Amino acid sequence: MTDSTRQLADFCANLRFDDLPAHVVARCEDLCLDWLGSALAGSRQHPTAAFERHAAAMGPARGDAEILSSRATTSPYFAAFVNAASSHVVEQDDLHNSSVLHPATVVFPAVLALAQARGASGRDLITASVAGYEAGVRVGEFLGRSHYRVFHTTGTAGTLAAAVAAGRLLNVDTDTMIHVLGNAGTQAAGLWAFLRDGADSKQLHTAKAAADGLRSSVMAADGLTGAQDIFGGSQGMAAGMSTDADTSKLAAGLGSRWALAETSFKFHASCRHTHPAADALLAVMAEHELAANDIEQVVARVHQGAIDVLGAVDVPRTIHQAKFSMGTVLGLIAVHGAAGLTEFDTRALTDDTVAAFRDRVAMQLDADVDAAYPRRWLGRVDVTTTDGRRLTGAIDEPKGDPGNTLSRAELEDKFARLVRFAGAADETETRRMIDTIWGLATLDRVPLLRAS
Amino acid sequence: MTDSTRQLADFCANLRFDDLPAHVVARCEDLCLDWLGSALAGSRQHPTAAFERHAAAMGPARGDAEILSSRATTSPYFAAFVNAASSHVVEQDDLHNSSVLHPATVVFPAVLALAQARGASGRDLITASVAGYEAGVRVGEFLGRSHYRVFHTTGTAGTLAAAVAAGRLLNVDTDTMIHVLGNAGTQAAGLWAFLRDGADSKQLHTAKAAADGLRSSVMAADGLTGAQDIFGGSQGMAAGMSTDADTSKLAAGLGSRWALAETSFKFHASCRHTHPAADALLAVMAEHELAANDIEQVVARVHQGAIDVLGAVDVPRTIHQAKFSMGTVLGLIAVHGAAGLTEFDTRALTDDTVAAFRDRVAMQLDADVDAAYPRRWLGRVDVTTTDGRRLTGAIDEPKGDPGNTLSRAELEDKFARLVRFAGAADETETRRMIDTIWGLATLDRVPLLRAS
Repeated sequence: MTDSTRQLADFCANLRFDDLPAHVVARCEDLCLDWLGSALAGSRQHPTAAFERHAAAMGPARGDAEILSSRATTSPYFAAFVNAASSHVVEQDDLHNSSVLHPATVVFPAVLALAQARGASGRDLITASVAGYEAGVRVGEFLGRSHYRVFHTTGTAGTLAAAVAAGRLLNVDTDTMIHVLGNAGTQAAGLWAFLRDGADSKQLHTAKAAADGLRSSVMAADGLTGAQDIFGGSQGMAAGMSTDADTSKLAAGLGSRWALAETSFKFHASCRHTHPAADALLAVMAEHELAANDIEQVVARVHQGAIDVLGAVDVPRTIHQAKFSMGTVLGLIAVHGAAGLTEFDTRALTDDTVAAFRDRVAMQLDADVDAAYPRRWLGRVDVTTTDGRRLTGAIDEPKGDPGNTLSRAELEDKFARLVRFAGAADETETRRMIDTIWGLATLDRVPLLRAS
Repeated sequence: MTDSTRQLADFCANLRFDDLPAHVVARCEDLCLDWLGSALAGSRQHPTAAFERHAAAMGPARGDAEILSSRATTSPYFAAFVNAASSHVVEQDDLHNSSVLHPATVVFPAVLALAQARGASGRDLITASVAGYEAGVRVGEFLGRSHYRVFHTTGTAGTLAAAVAAGRLLNVDTDTMIHVLGNAGTQAAGLWAFLRDGADSKQLHTAKAAADGLRSSVMAADGLTGAQDIFGGSQGMAAGMSTDADTSKLAAGLGSRWALAETSFKFHASCRHTHPAADALLAVMAEHELAANDIEQVVARVHQGAIDVLGAVDVPRTIHQAKFSMGTVLGLIAVHGAAGLTEFDTRALTDDTVAAFRDRVAMQLDADVDAAYPRRWLGRVDVTTTDGRRLTGAIDEPKGDPGNTLSRAELEDKFARLVRFAGAADETETRRMIDTIWGLATLDRVPLLRAS
């Protein structure tokens, strides 16, 4: 077995709440509220209802875990399944840069469902979530850039993130945690092929990752064994799904480097690959007091991963596709000053000015930006104005990155906007949910947040 | 889109019972009975109970589909999940040679569960199953040998086989069938890493393939879209999971070549990669009237795939691992004349004579055998006798291959042995199940076979 497999399992199985630095606990609560907002914002969006119907058809009529979007209850498996789908619809959920993993949308659905079903405490939920973040990020880094070019890392590494989080909540020991990793790694799936068609697989990937991760740990705790080393060897994840995998990443910095604290919040409601350029465009427009119609052309200088993921979308046909269109995102920024949920909903597909701006945007691979990626997501745009000036916008940390993060007031504001967008709750309930999450570490028992 | 993706979807969506040659219909019934026997034989074997408990914990308390091993009912998703696990435990389920796919264990669980839940006819079940076989085999062939070296094709291609079968049962049109393929391909998973540890992932793979395949079609029929071309392109299955994929295999010979009729039954209760050598050893021992203690050494000359899959097991620690030990299989054959369920159960791990014979067996890559594989599974053994003779055993079609198949009487006998092995049914019920399957094409409504 790769030593790092056991080290990772050992760390995650034995992580205690008291081991967590205070800033990690607080950031975990921040990420949990941010995730809850995304889950609610996706409530009435396509394709969430299809996931709700699948849970209703294939799961129990009621259970100990809740489906946030519908206020129904079901088994933990299907609660995780639906909540992971709905929290990855509006592209407002968090992202860890160097692993290119969206941890919240897979970790919290699995942990919340199991915590509710087992009457776990808020501290248990936090500890388990941190374990999931630490494992998932390291698995994403282990799989490397070659993996992300073809696979949706949140579907693949995300299965292990959810599995480890669920395993920690179930108090499995180190040996069982190794089986958890084995069970999860052999279920890991998710290809980017859907992207150019604007198909619904992105939500299927997170739903599956959270639910299959939960299954990996529940069944391991019940005696189902998995590979001792799912990562290395000639028939493991590295051999099958990567050409630049590095097993040394799996256990690097455990207990000293907190990957959870490196996770970024999303400010714009679009694919994270568009955010550096969006912030750089905002910066150059502010600095030179430009309006959209002052701009003749924008060249976004980007890393290769942005081209791989965004390049497939030319003219977006759906709102979800628009979130993967660099031209549309920069068009919304330039014309409306923001690329939030409301702008996407009302402007992204129908606004001729935005569409015209979109056609004036190009992406270009930039060696420096690419070399820094994925550790740092640098924003660089070259702007040519209608009066012939050539200007450059540059930011080194997009809004929401750890060095440029959102305050609790900004997070509450984002949460309230997401809830309002979906009409998911009134102000009283919104406030109550915020207070519940800010008080998570004091709860003896994680309650149902929405269902009764 | 790869043209072959649409051609495959179109063929499978529009296949009619009346299109099927009579020998294909009859063989489908043969394979169905053979599968049912495997599902029952696995009833009381580890890890089937863990799958039953997972279904009970996460699924509904009752439903319209049955769990064969426990006689319980549940939703189609969980019925497919458990039945696919139990039918892949004892290594008696069918195999298609050139795709290295076990089709029955993924196709029939999905189709039976949906047919029971929807009140479909026996003819619908047969047509849907044939569609699943035709698609699954072609996807396995498309993924190629490089895929099978790392991935358990029955887990990966099996997801698409189950999905297409379920989609046909749901009467989806061609466009929807393309989404079915997209939904299934992006869920396809299953690594061989577990094998050297004798872990339980093999059953997890088939359970997932059948259940996720069913989900792919149920959700596609409900509007969940998938990639238009999950096979080709820079972010599809070929790019991510194979280095020798060939999209031309996907639609080759549709309507003229019936892959289902090429599928082999398993005679020995071990990994199919051991069967050619087992039959060759039986042949040379019969020809020269050898007993086990006349034999000094056996060299099994095999294809590379056999070394990849079997080479991991040295001294087996579990009965399931013994089925992947060439030495143990040939030991059972030499010492006891057979390698059936009973021999494995009572002799494989505890019989010193078998263990001693096992240590006298070696595998060696043979260029001719490897060149013929996977289209033909040639059996070649070189035997050195204790009195110094060097003999060779050779068979070109292992028992159970289409050219050396099992008759209905032999299939009934195998079925009865499998049922008896598990104590799963008395003679009356055994006979009733046989009659039900032989009469499948006449049933207006597929009944519950075991549950009440």
